[in-house]
Amino acid sequence: MVKDSNIKDTQTSNPFESVSSEIKLIAIDVDGVLTDGSIYLDDHGNQTKKFNSRDGMGIRLLQKYGFEIALISGSKSNSIKARGISLNINFIMTGVENKHVAINKIQKILNINPSQTIFLGDDINDLTVLPAVRMFLSPKNAHPACLGKANWIGKCEGGEGFFREFTDLFLFSLNINPYLEFESSST
Amino acid sequence: MVKDSNIKDTQTSNPFESVSSEIKLIAIDVDGVLTDGSIYLDDHGNQTKKFNSRDGMGIRLLQKYGFEIALISGSKSNSIKARGISLNINFIMTGVENKHVAINKIQKILNINPSQTIFLGDDINDLTVLPAVRMFLSPKNAHPACLGKANWIGKCEGGEGFFREFTDLFLFSLNINPYLEFESSST
Amino acid sequence: MVKDSNIKDTQTSNPFESVSSEIKLIAIDVDGVLTDGSIYLDDHGNQTKKFNSRDGMGIRLLQKYGFEIALISGSKSNSIKARGISLNINFIMTGVENKHVAINKIQKILNINPSQTIFLGDDINDLTVLPAVRMFLSPKNAHPACLGKANWIGKCEGGEGFFREFTDLFLFSLNINPYLEFESSST
Amino acid sequence: MVKDSNIKDTQTSNPFESVSSEIKLIAIDVDGVLTDGSIYLDDHGNQTKKFNSRDGMGIRLLQKYGFEIALISGSKSNSIKARGISLNINFIMTGVENKHVAINKIQKILNINPSQTIFLGDDINDLTVLPAVRMFLSPKNAHPACLGKANWIGKCEGGEGFFREFTDLFLFSLNINPYLEFESSST
Repeated sequence: MVKDSNIKDTQTSNPFESVSSEIKLIAIDVDGVLTDGSIYLDDHGNQTKKFNSRDGMGIRLLQKYGFEIALISGSKSNSIKARGISLNINFIMTGVENKHVAINKIQKILNINPSQTIFLGDDINDLTVLPAVRMFLSPKNAHPACLGKANWIGKCEGGEGFFREFTDLFLFSLNINPYLEFESSST
Repeated sequence: MVKDSNIKDTQTSNPFESVSSEIKLIAIDVDGVLTDGSIYLDDHGNQTKKFNSRDGMGIRLLQKYGFEIALISGSKSNSIKARGISLNINFIMTGVENKHVAINKIQKILNINPSQTIFLGDDINDLTVLPAVRMFLSPKNAHPACLGKANWIGKCEGGEGFFREFTDLFLFSLNINPYLEFESSST
Repeated sequence: MVKDSNIKDTQTSNPFESVSSEIKLIAIDVDGVLTDGSIYLDDHGNQTKKFNSRDGMGIRLLQKYGFEIALISGSKSNSIKARGISLNINFIMTGVENKHVAINKIQKILNINPSQTIFLGDDINDLTVLPAVRMFLSPKNAHPACLGKANWIGKCEGGEGFFREFTDLFLFSLNINPYLEFESSST
Repeated sequence: MVKDSNIKDTQTSNPFESVSSEIKLIAIDVDGVLTDGSIYLDDHGNQTKKFNSRDGMGIRLLQKYGFEIALISGSKSNSIKARGISLNINFIMTGVENKHVAINKIQKILNINPSQTIFLGDDINDLTVLPAVRMFLSPKNAHPACLGKANWIGKCEGGEGFFREFTDLFLFSLNINPYLEFESSST
């Protein structure tokens, strides 16, 4: 693990500064957060979702540094399972009606509590998780009701860099700069 | 149902204020309204359309509060049926040549009249419905001929938030704030 | 056919004014003109192209008023054939190596000459048609080499309204306003 | 081959001026460079990537003028192979864990060295190639860590014109103007 003591100084204020060291679980709504909300449907009812390779790298980095990832979606699409499996995500919950209940279930399995949990969501049904998480994060194009409740709002839109933006800031708050590693492995 | 008496005050003028309480049917053109007009065609002629998860939430909210939804499209694509079925929409009409006739058919079945109907459309073949509806609504990127006739023009483009924008304003005009519900169910 | 004598007055200058009455054939490159240039490829090599419903309406209107449409593409994708067939286009040429030769072939069949032909293209291989057509039209995001040669450059990008923008201007130059028709058929 | 001695004069400074004549290999990361990073996944786990027809023309032009092309991707998707095969690319490497090693392998086969190699990348795992290449090029929306190391940053985003932008500048630096050829073949 490469640590970079200079990173923090160049950040005027990192929203995860005082929180990140306690976090164990990063739970993610899918549509509108890891995607731009698009639901592609073909003539046979086969559904496609559009994920982003940079967000995938973000998830792999978080896993590398020990964080548990969960996908919690109201959608029943198997494309979510396909994405989760390809990224070795342990908790892939689809067709979820109450996300609060879903979060609690994962927290019991991991034996952690709300103060160790971050949730990323963009629509009103995500708001039910509020009492179960330490921070609620939203992309800049989230529904106004979410923007009003979010502890942090990204500069990026869902599916357009938002999750990676979070990952970079979050790891920086822990003094981790994964880029140094890739550079050093190249020399 | 959660009502919020403060909402109306913060809205300077809601275009659905004097209309919404009489509306029973919300009829929607698909291409360019629930989508951005994209028609994806593969090498086997299989067609895909791109819908949006936030619009889906909008349709579910309108249904929850008792409004009938209809999809009326000139396109014959089965992807429209797949979307309509997944959202429990009762009226899914595809390959429609004359949308005026289609609207009248639904109005007869529901025993309602034009003054109880809203239509959302974006292209010139949608203009035939004008005499059969109370309001004609268009996304900001609709064809100029539609923009010239529309009773309300959204700030959003078709498939990019337009339908949900309508839903939020429409429900607010009825003093309904569905977000309060999601918050309260979370505490 | 609905004619509207007032349209021309509101147009300061229509680029097709002196040309449109002589035109018989409208030949269209596909990638980057009827699409945004995207080539979707799946794990099985199945290709998808993204067309636009508004452009489809434009083609149907031009056909209605007697113009012959041709798709001339260097790509071999069957998705082009699927789109052409769904729009009843008579000339669908794919895998074309020399577009000049292709245009000449169609002109012979139709017994017309270059002065009766418009071509819409966006990339350098389209430039070979220049001596075979009356006008060469490009979307605003065409390759600079095409923009330098184009007789008219649309305000819209390829696949994002460009073809319909052309259609509307072209029909207006003939004093045809197809929207009046849709309105009148609705009363 | 059409050469245009006037081109260089109109370019204030071409970043490939002093380099291009020595280059033999142009190696390209795929996600985020030839695509916008989108990963489309359907209900059956079938993956689709979105390439661009203009970039395809760029690759064909570079091949025409004798440059070797390589695709080097961390992704295992067969869609990369489908794209590479359709463009007659000789080196198509997918599922690559260490891109530095991959580049070295190709350089040995071609019997060339780092000073004859250009790499185009957008994310942190691409940085490992730095010691193995002459120039590292990034699209304008690359990860900040790449932008900080890039020898040239395009005005275009990945998948949205970036590779063709590079191609045009690179060929111009060699006094090659492929557009003249297409024009002259048309007269």
